[in-house]
Amino acid sequence: MLDVHGWLEKFGAALAAGDGAAVAGLFLPDGLWRDYLALGWTLATHEGTAAITAFASARAQDSGIGGFASDAATGASEGFISFETALGRGEGYVRLVGEQCFTLLTALKELKGFEEPLRGRRHSGVVDETGQRTWEDVRHDDVEQWNESNPPYVLVIGAGQGGLALGARLKMLGVPCLLVDKYPRVGDQWRSRYKSLLLHDPVWYDHMPYVPFPDHWPVYTPKQKMGDWLEYYAGIMELGIWTSTECKGISRDPATGKWRVELLRDGKPVTLVPEHLVMAVGNAGFAVTPELPGQESFKGHQFHSSEHPGGEGLEGQRVVVVGANNSAHDICADLVSHGAEPVMIQRSSTLIVRQSNMETLLAGAYSQQAFDSGLVTDKADLISASVPLRLAEKVNRATWDALQVSEAPFYQRLTDAGFQVDFGPDGTGIAMKFQRTSSGYYVDVGASEMVADGRIKVRSGVTIERIDEDGLVLSDGSHERADRIIYATGFGDMKQWVARLINPEVAERIGKTWGYGSGFPGDEGPWEGEMKNLWKPTPEPGLWFMAGNLAMARSYSQYLGLQLKARYEELPVEPYVPA
Amino acid sequence: MLDVHGWLEKFGAALAAGDGAAVAGLFLPDGLWRDYLALGWTLATHEGTAAITAFASARAQDSGIGGFASDAATGASEGFISFETALGRGEGYVRLVGEQCFTLLTALKELKGFEEPLRGRRHSGVVDETGQRTWEDVRHDDVEQWNESNPPYVLVIGAGQGGLALGARLKMLGVPCLLVDKYPRVGDQWRSRYKSLLLHDPVWYDHMPYVPFPDHWPVYTPKQKMGDWLEYYAGIMELGIWTSTECKGISRDPATGKWRVELLRDGKPVTLVPEHLVMAVGNAGFAVTPELPGQESFKGHQFHSSEHPGGEGLEGQRVVVVGANNSAHDICADLVSHGAEPVMIQRSSTLIVRQSNMETLLAGAYSQQAFDSGLVTDKADLISASVPLRLAEKVNRATWDALQVSEAPFYQRLTDAGFQVDFGPDGTGIAMKFQRTSSGYYVDVGASEMVADGRIKVRSGVTIERIDEDGLVLSDGSHERADRIIYATGFGDMKQWVARLINPEVAERIGKTWGYGSGFPGDEGPWEGEMKNLWKPTPEPGLWFMAGNLAMARSYSQYLGLQLKARYEELPVEPYVPA
Repeated sequence: MLDVHGWLEKFGAALAAGDGAAVAGLFLPDGLWRDYLALGWTLATHEGTAAITAFASARAQDSGIGGFASDAATGASEGFISFETALGRGEGYVRLVGEQCFTLLTALKELKGFEEPLRGRRHSGVVDETGQRTWEDVRHDDVEQWNESNPPYVLVIGAGQGGLALGARLKMLGVPCLLVDKYPRVGDQWRSRYKSLLLHDPVWYDHMPYVPFPDHWPVYTPKQKMGDWLEYYAGIMELGIWTSTECKGISRDPATGKWRVELLRDGKPVTLVPEHLVMAVGNAGFAVTPELPGQESFKGHQFHSSEHPGGEGLEGQRVVVVGANNSAHDICADLVSHGAEPVMIQRSSTLIVRQSNMETLLAGAYSQQAFDSGLVTDKADLISASVPLRLAEKVNRATWDALQVSEAPFYQRLTDAGFQVDFGPDGTGIAMKFQRTSSGYYVDVGASEMVADGRIKVRSGVTIERIDEDGLVLSDGSHERADRIIYATGFGDMKQWVARLINPEVAERIGKTWGYGSGFPGDEGPWEGEMKNLWKPTPEPGLWFMAGNLAMARSYSQYLGLQLKARYEELPVEPYVPA
Repeated sequence: MLDVHGWLEKFGAALAAGDGAAVAGLFLPDGLWRDYLALGWTLATHEGTAAITAFASARAQDSGIGGFASDAATGASEGFISFETALGRGEGYVRLVGEQCFTLLTALKELKGFEEPLRGRRHSGVVDETGQRTWEDVRHDDVEQWNESNPPYVLVIGAGQGGLALGARLKMLGVPCLLVDKYPRVGDQWRSRYKSLLLHDPVWYDHMPYVPFPDHWPVYTPKQKMGDWLEYYAGIMELGIWTSTECKGISRDPATGKWRVELLRDGKPVTLVPEHLVMAVGNAGFAVTPELPGQESFKGHQFHSSEHPGGEGLEGQRVVVVGANNSAHDICADLVSHGAEPVMIQRSSTLIVRQSNMETLLAGAYSQQAFDSGLVTDKADLISASVPLRLAEKVNRATWDALQVSEAPFYQRLTDAGFQVDFGPDGTGIAMKFQRTSSGYYVDVGASEMVADGRIKVRSGVTIERIDEDGLVLSDGSHERADRIIYATGFGDMKQWVARLINPEVAERIGKTWGYGSGFPGDEGPWEGEMKNLWKPTPEPGLWFMAGNLAMARSYSQYLGLQLKARYEELPVEPYVPA
């Protein structure tokens, strides 16, 4: 039987011959080839014989791919691989079934001649033998030099984890880049959240590029600590950032085709004209509050969940929280801990996953055990990427079928309390919900017990008819008295930022910036098989999007960084578009 | 022939039997056993048969040492070892010559039941299930809770690398500790140095505990970046630090025997009464300026090297720099780069080592290659500690004999320029000079070329007779005109801080806080074989000293941290004193 080494030999030969049909013949009929830049210069999964034949025919020879190797054991049917292309070096992962490939990942790691200054390639520290110009002077210019006649090549709007991770990659790649952020300090996005917030993902999943969390870092990072870490990170990586800087509007410079970005830095207008613009404004950045009849008549405070300052001083108050996902649960738990009386209005069912299960779901690739056994973060990210979304749906379906059984008593208690639980429209659980709509779930860090025992009152299966001066009238005719209403009703698509900052036409041309075309509500088809418009070329040249959690920021900043670097160096990197 | 495993078996058996003579019989007659806390609860090297017999007889059985193991290859005559004691777990390194041991290191690594919260033991991040008290609240109290009636167990004076490294160890060990520092921001000790300063040691040697420099960090850290790193470090480790806090005086509380420390925090007096006081004020913290006849008549500026702000604005000025060691060279080079005319007054010969040689000297244990080959920082520190000072003198003598030959042309050029070069009184080079007196050398980062080509003028073999209004009169009758005089004349012993802050009697009782009794000028005998009063019990109970470069801060903070933890937990840890 063919092992990884034998298969790679055949694969390399077929590619070298430019024989698309022969390449596809090495895959199962429903085989999946996910290529991250290595041949196709975009993020794409080629599914099945026809697509793989076309992709290989178009790109095998031009890319110059070859030199495949693997450290897999002899006889192994899966393992990590490495290879070269004309432009760079790559790595990936292959899974065989019998003689054929089931999944293949080919991911670009670095560009030849533009290797990052790490380890043995690090800077000496001396910037000027004469001692006149110092490291500090260079650092100062990195931040302050930019103006209309001297623009950065890349401007990143937003210095949260996504912007910072990309900024770090571009710094290491030597691409002139400036980040701007509306907050006065890096990390304020996290600091400004409610007091009791912790990250919902464990530390092993959350490392930023280049500067891993140290070994004493807590499993679930408290939000203040997260904000501070990002601020240290920006300093350690010496990123060029303008804080207290708002983006007022963006247009195309008709003369040059470059972006024309109007900024207000510490209240002073500055215009920059970068080649590339990266929106890293957060997929949870555009608050959505429903418009409800009678809303203006309500006598108490009402606001979006993102403005919840914490439950201090709300003892004895009745607070209606509209929504039943992460924010709603966190806020209700916070209210309980401060002696308030929360009522959660659940408009549609919610997926609940206990944090301990979440940790188990991730543990294969991201845990202390996995790390200690040699599956360091870079390798874990490759393993994650090696499972294309088509396969991820199947794997997650099986996982959640099992979880529904093993956690049945937990879910029953919630159902008994009148809470409506789901596991995704097709039973594929939280990972797919996250990648489809980034909504509809709660990672239980304690609030579900409060729902079950009634400390958080739930009104489910109702809609809101109207608001009156002291509460809400629901669709079953009942009235919920409220001293305060918090709308935990989620966030809009990043294209809404595009519509506001650039214009609605560009936003429409780009379309959605999340989801992969699964065909389920909120993530309409056709099937794309990769996240829409994220970390890859969009229909608008020079406009890019970073988004997602810390793991996505880390992992995908590598690919967006390499794409920008390739353009900065004017390398031939035309993205592959299937015929 | 006996290998490491065979020797450890015999060694373990002899120790278990409490048979000091049998233990000593396993060592060469001039064998060296360096014990860091494991049996003796101090830092000590036991040299030769009699000393080893006495040590083993006194401590072998009481310590409960045993369970020796090694990952050395079969047949190997040296390698890393691990072991246990009644109180803790240790590691070390052994070197055999034939059947006998030449050097043995036994170093305590952790205390049983008090393992550090790292990796799999890390904190969950949740401090209060109810959500009332947050991580931020705990962090706030860690810094702000201390007052006269609620003192920290340990007070550390000085938050440079030594204080911070110890603070980090104590944090991980759960020992209540507060650091105080006179500067407004952590890292200001470094930031306030002259502009062009870089660390003289390469990055692999300079890691702080728990948070290694990331892979992109420059080889020689610029001083501003070093200051920033220490500030980030303090934040990442969440150390309790009062900045802008001066220590005005220290006494013993007669009632309790505790220290009574008078502080001025942001100008407001605070008294704290800690059990333990750690002086981490820096061995280069007490500036020494010579008193010279006529000094008051000089019309220009004159000051100590530590106050040199950098050469900006000194173009065309003639600056006499008294001294010819590190600071003098760095300042002269800085002056040259700013167009000033420096004259260096060399009062005695200097050891010069080129930075490239310095890197080579360290490369076996601290380099990218060593690290990549598996000699990670903790292991490199063990290797370093495994060479007791008696052996270090021999090894360094051989190294420098070779270096004098290979670098002869370089040294000849300096001599030709009238500069007096030495290699230590016994030819043992910079490492021994450093550990004996921490003076008398320059790590050449460029100034030696300026000395050789005359850009830095040198007056050597002369003393200063007197100062007059426009310069210096030298012992050969010549006059050196000066617009400015900088005294690069070094720093006093830390005991001078003790004399000033506590009282001169305590300072005298403690004696020197550097050197190891080598018997050479500035480091008088008798031979002690370990650094005097550093990181180990001193003649004054509850008074401890941290000092040294970044590598010492990292490495020895572990041992001082464990000693303080053992006392905090009231473990039986009486230091061994030879009869």
